[in-house]
Amino acid sequence: MVRLTLGLLALAAIVCDSTVSAILPNPNRRIRRQASNCSTPVDPAIKAPKPNPWLPFSRNETATLLEWLHAPAQGLNLTVYANFTPWDNRVGVTELLIPNKTDVLNYLEGGPAPVRYARVELYFGATENPYTEDYIVGPIPVSEATTINPLNFIYNKGNGKSPVYAADYQLLIQWAESIGTQISDIMLDILGTDLNTSRIIASDPKQEDGRTILWAQYGLYPTSEYDSGSILPQGLFLKTDITGRKPEEWKLLNIFYDNILYDGVDEFRKAWETPGFNKLTKQVDGNWTHTGRSSTGESIPLDERAPPISIQPEGQRFSVDKDENYVKWMDFEFYTGFSRDLGVTLYNIKYKGKRIIYELGLQEAIAHYAGNDPMQSRTAYLDSYYGFGPYVFELLPGYDCPTYSTFLKTSYSEAGYSFTNKDSICLFEQDAGYPLQRHTSRDFITVTKNTVFTLRFVSTVGNYDYNFDYNFYLDGSIEVKVRASGYIQAAFYANNEDYGYKIHDAISGSMHDHVLNFKADIDVLGVKNTFEKVAIVSDTVDYVWSPIPRNTMRLERSFVENEDDGKINWPTNSAAMYVVVNTDEPNIYGEYPGYRILPGSGSPIHLTIQNSSNLLNSAEFGTHHLYVTKQKDTEPRSAAAANSMDLGDPLVNFGNFFDSESLVQEDIVVWFNLGMHHVPHTGDLPNTVFTTGQSSVFLSPHNYLLGDPSRFTSQQVEVRFTPGVDNSAVVKDAPSTPKCLVVDMSPMFPDFSTYQGGEQTRKFPYTDEVDPNASDP
Amino acid sequence: MVRLTLGLLALAAIVCDSTVSAILPNPNRRIRRQASNCSTPVDPAIKAPKPNPWLPFSRNETATLLEWLHAPAQGLNLTVYANFTPWDNRVGVTELLIPNKTDVLNYLEGGPAPVRYARVELYFGATENPYTEDYIVGPIPVSEATTINPLNFIYNKGNGKSPVYAADYQLLIQWAESIGTQISDIMLDILGTDLNTSRIIASDPKQEDGRTILWAQYGLYPTSEYDSGSILPQGLFLKTDITGRKPEEWKLLNIFYDNILYDGVDEFRKAWETPGFNKLTKQVDGNWTHTGRSSTGESIPLDERAPPISIQPEGQRFSVDKDENYVKWMDFEFYTGFSRDLGVTLYNIKYKGKRIIYELGLQEAIAHYAGNDPMQSRTAYLDSYYGFGPYVFELLPGYDCPTYSTFLKTSYSEAGYSFTNKDSICLFEQDAGYPLQRHTSRDFITVTKNTVFTLRFVSTVGNYDYNFDYNFYLDGSIEVKVRASGYIQAAFYANNEDYGYKIHDAISGSMHDHVLNFKADIDVLGVKNTFEKVAIVSDTVDYVWSPIPRNTMRLERSFVENEDDGKINWPTNSAAMYVVVNTDEPNIYGEYPGYRILPGSGSPIHLTIQNSSNLLNSAEFGTHHLYVTKQKDTEPRSAAAANSMDLGDPLVNFGNFFDSESLVQEDIVVWFNLGMHHVPHTGDLPNTVFTTGQSSVFLSPHNYLLGDPSRFTSQQVEVRFTPGVDNSAVVKDAPSTPKCLVVDMSPMFPDFSTYQGGEQTRKFPYTDEVDPNASDP
Repeated sequence: MVRLTLGLLALAAIVCDSTVSAILPNPNRRIRRQASNCSTPVDPAIKAPKPNPWLPFSRNETATLLEWLHAPAQGLNLTVYANFTPWDNRVGVTELLIPNKTDVLNYLEGGPAPVRYARVELYFGATENPYTEDYIVGPIPVSEATTINPLNFIYNKGNGKSPVYAADYQLLIQWAESIGTQISDIMLDILGTDLNTSRIIASDPKQEDGRTILWAQYGLYPTSEYDSGSILPQGLFLKTDITGRKPEEWKLLNIFYDNILYDGVDEFRKAWETPGFNKLTKQVDGNWTHTGRSSTGESIPLDERAPPISIQPEGQRFSVDKDENYVKWMDFEFYTGFSRDLGVTLYNIKYKGKRIIYELGLQEAIAHYAGNDPMQSRTAYLDSYYGFGPYVFELLPGYDCPTYSTFLKTSYSEAGYSFTNKDSICLFEQDAGYPLQRHTSRDFITVTKNTVFTLRFVSTVGNYDYNFDYNFYLDGSIEVKVRASGYIQAAFYANNEDYGYKIHDAISGSMHDHVLNFKADIDVLGVKNTFEKVAIVSDTVDYVWSPIPRNTMRLERSFVENEDDGKINWPTNSAAMYVVVNTDEPNIYGEYPGYRILPGSGSPIHLTIQNSSNLLNSAEFGTHHLYVTKQKDTEPRSAAAANSMDLGDPLVNFGNFFDSESLVQEDIVVWFNLGMHHVPHTGDLPNTVFTTGQSSVFLSPHNYLLGDPSRFTSQQVEVRFTPGVDNSAVVKDAPSTPKCLVVDMSPMFPDFSTYQGGEQTRKFPYTDEVDPNASDP
Repeated sequence: MVRLTLGLLALAAIVCDSTVSAILPNPNRRIRRQASNCSTPVDPAIKAPKPNPWLPFSRNETATLLEWLHAPAQGLNLTVYANFTPWDNRVGVTELLIPNKTDVLNYLEGGPAPVRYARVELYFGATENPYTEDYIVGPIPVSEATTINPLNFIYNKGNGKSPVYAADYQLLIQWAESIGTQISDIMLDILGTDLNTSRIIASDPKQEDGRTILWAQYGLYPTSEYDSGSILPQGLFLKTDITGRKPEEWKLLNIFYDNILYDGVDEFRKAWETPGFNKLTKQVDGNWTHTGRSSTGESIPLDERAPPISIQPEGQRFSVDKDENYVKWMDFEFYTGFSRDLGVTLYNIKYKGKRIIYELGLQEAIAHYAGNDPMQSRTAYLDSYYGFGPYVFELLPGYDCPTYSTFLKTSYSEAGYSFTNKDSICLFEQDAGYPLQRHTSRDFITVTKNTVFTLRFVSTVGNYDYNFDYNFYLDGSIEVKVRASGYIQAAFYANNEDYGYKIHDAISGSMHDHVLNFKADIDVLGVKNTFEKVAIVSDTVDYVWSPIPRNTMRLERSFVENEDDGKINWPTNSAAMYVVVNTDEPNIYGEYPGYRILPGSGSPIHLTIQNSSNLLNSAEFGTHHLYVTKQKDTEPRSAAAANSMDLGDPLVNFGNFFDSESLVQEDIVVWFNLGMHHVPHTGDLPNTVFTTGQSSVFLSPHNYLLGDPSRFTSQQVEVRFTPGVDNSAVVKDAPSTPKCLVVDMSPMFPDFSTYQGGEQTRKFPYTDEVDPNASDP
């Protein structure tokens, strides 16, 4: 609910004109050497084998597109953001429309680059029923050939139109606040606050019997500078009918307090004036909401000493083409894209020169709450509506990622502005903290280092900080991991015992499910693949050598033949393996090479609630743990940001992907969920910690190569010795010691005074501080 | 099967007399500073608050115990190991009998130290039916008051006696090999090897209808110096009857080849001579079994550069009393014990001054195989029979653990010898690789470092290397994690399609389950606790504020009332939380403080096979994911090493722990399983890698404190800034930068020529190189 203020169309918080801040290189972020014989190895340069077809729009592409859209010739009657009212038409998101897989494969195999098109979201406000609609505009950069047409083919609703029920959001909040003036004496008595010290928290409006219903709740303003609003709800709720666009027709329907529904102000006042009226405990803000170091003076033994830290003694062991968003680490390489809705997506991931994954990335994130009160009960976020991209903020080196990381910036464009967050993706290697392989015998030991390469970004969508990690391992595995920290969304405690723990004087830790859907378009030795299930079953079996039948186990191999069987749960007791295999390319032993998908950490979940009254037809990707469908250019994503605006009739209903198509040696796509049930307890105050708030899935080679590929690494050692005999050991294969053995740690303790947060640039009318021909966004 | 040669009574591999090698301090394992103002912080010293009641026997305690046992006065007629034959009596394991919890609690609360007793395992060989029996001997150190009695009270079989069916193991192997002389021409033809190039692999003998049946299989001798025997099985099997102790009465019953059972040598020879006899593919050893760096010349880009490495800039931030095996890190402290059967156990784990876990440690490890052939089908290891303690080998600094770790040695005593592995436990801190907490808003960021403290040891039981981690977190969580690397046990490929993948010319990756049982005796604010289940359920609910019922979810709280309900599986879709709570001590908000138990990584499993024909009554701890029972001094462990010797009638049948006792506000114990299904594929050659071969469980505070305890750490930072404005950031709470910022990395690249492996010392008759009064083992 707090997230609405950050929503798609509620951009009031944006500073409307700003200067572009220079992005200064930060030489401190690299290890310096002291001695003269200690030269820093040069970070290796690389050029992408081909231009990145998923590269977000350049400054020039965006600026010329916006100019073209606003030109009278297009007849769109758009108003620039600075002059915009909710009754105008306006441009929303403008970004690259992800090219079709068929076109990109052709390009990767030597064909022409796919024509670049824009996805343009337009808001139409000059109507009683405002709506947004998506358009496809191209070719980009604009030329005489450029046209604009409704974008329909990627939405199985049939069109890209979505109603906007909160078009007059600013007016709405003012109107809702005015209700409070009628009950300010009651508020002061039962909440301890008035309209100056409480605020209106509005949920997303929903359609009920043709009316637009909005529930609102009072919440404390934080008394500190901390971002703690989401854990300071109060126990008073308002039900309003905000149908239409005339505030004079909007109505307060009910007041809700202590599980009693009152028919308006008069009935509520009468009850309050009646002796014996039950007044609930009031919540008060305080130190308990502050994320800073606790000021109570309690200290932890030896905690003031600097803890262990990771260093990188010989420079980067990976290379990045920053112009093309292309990354190569060891035997892996990939491109990245970035979108306003979903943040970073990885494309064309190759391993040892062959594509294993065409596309890997977030699709949507549900945070579904429940409660006895209407705010918690009616809250179910689909976070791509707010967008992950805008909140991929600058990272803190040494805390969020190692100081020696390669940091990249991210940008997106909305409402005529470009927004840039510098240093908001980090790429780094780190020791896993345990070896990759080891074996000891009485006279022998061999151990291999486990260096993991990570692409990380964090998106703080309102109260929650989602950390996304894509981890690459030397055995060919890829792990996708999500963690959640930040503030919980708390409930007012009253009557919420069945929905959470009481975690402070008048606060309940509102139970909720996080379900984050990902797409993994795996291609094993080509696009034609099959989804194999290898079940591990208990059985009683007769053997020719056994006098009696034996209780044992065996494998049961089968294929998921078509989409009717494509909705899958992780099996009880993990008693099955799921593998994307290529049955046309058996290995020399006759087994099918494949990539297996399996849970990593934190037992990823699907949504608890069946047929959610909140999400209606927009959570079909949350009913199971994973899904397999046939790849189609018309089904590129399991959801759409605008689904949130019409949950019963969303742009993309993932359930409709399942139409009995064959999955045997077809181009198949796996969709899997990460996430966790979260029933916050006192330890979630002030913030949830990542420790138990994480889940991951592995994509791991399975009979894919003929042996463990980590045998090729130089970072392993073998020692042979005679037990109990001193100095008898012979060391084999040990990697060479770095030439420079002196490290200056100063760069690992950076000065954060340059931390800057997001930058924005007006792209229409164009802000001339920036060269429109620069290739940088 | 290969593990039998390392078994409880088959100590032939031990060098029978050896000198004690000096344990040299290794000053290289500490970070040195260069500049004169760079003084190494002193590693903090600590003295355990009380002597460790679980401390393993000292040299003196062991030596005087052995002398006492062998004295004629005791009438045990024991033979010293050097002169031992299977027809003699002999001492086996001698170690501390873990004191009763009731006695230790009394001691910890100010009472006298528990009297120390020995568990003494004796082998009685001068009989047609050899057996072992456990005795309790004490007080220790021996005195006039010392007595010896059968040890019965911890075994719910009623006594500590176990039959020894493989007493004449050496003779048996010789006898089985002699069978090969009758078929050496056939072997050469169908295996490509003879008795010089193949060996007999014998499984554990089992009782069938009153007879002792032993199945044996031929296997290649490794042609290299690598420990690859377990992946070189061949397709020829022998069934023998080895009942009794007279080799002349032992019989070859059958020969098994290509799924055909032959009645002895003659029938097999006749078949072989018949035209059309099907000869299976032969397996040949080669580079594919070698764990060293692959010699094929394939290299990985940039892999020769040294990868990132963890350093410890300001010395240890924890302290260890090495005399008392007592460890203190931040707000955690605990004692350790060490046993031959199970390796390291943690005791009396306190957090912020209060005990949260009385005992935490491994109980038993199953590795259960299956297959169409009698060797794989009949193999189910209970690894404590071989013992984890003996194989807790020396670790490799910089590979197994950071070089700056504190390394401890381990010792155990068996057959009159003490065995010591130096540097075989490591204690270290490391950055988790991701923050513990973070939150960003438009003008603010706060992040907390996530430093984790780990106690690690590795036990290589035959082919498998089990890595055990006990991880401690700043939020109060403890993670128990097991990983498996090393060589798999492969099957011969023929007819094993339903039991594994074909992973080389004639080898199948034999499917198996790893199930490792742990005990967690959790005490939340005292010993009287209750096991709470908080289920997360989908439901349709009527609310007073909603016109229609709503599809939502809610919590369902209940207690596991008694042991009848004490066998629990992790719920489908993780839809329940399990918490050990103290209902007598609700917090100020009325919630029960507790420690929650939940899966961490790798989806821990229970055994697939129901009523295993191999394990019979000895795997009752493997039927579910976790168990809750009432704590009893007579039920200290869920298994016994000797269970393996009589699986149908084991010393400890865990199933009998469940006798309807109340679990409501009683002293309760949680037993949980880690492990994984393992269906090896080509990537398991030559060794399994840890990446997907790991599982963990978290024990995590749950409403235990009133907030997140990590708020007290100094290792966090807060930055406030004005978005887009340069140099506006204000940094708060940043930890102080280390005084010394220059690090010499030389110690991180240690010289392994001092690697030594295990040491042994004869304790009876006493080897006089060592002072028997030294307190060290």
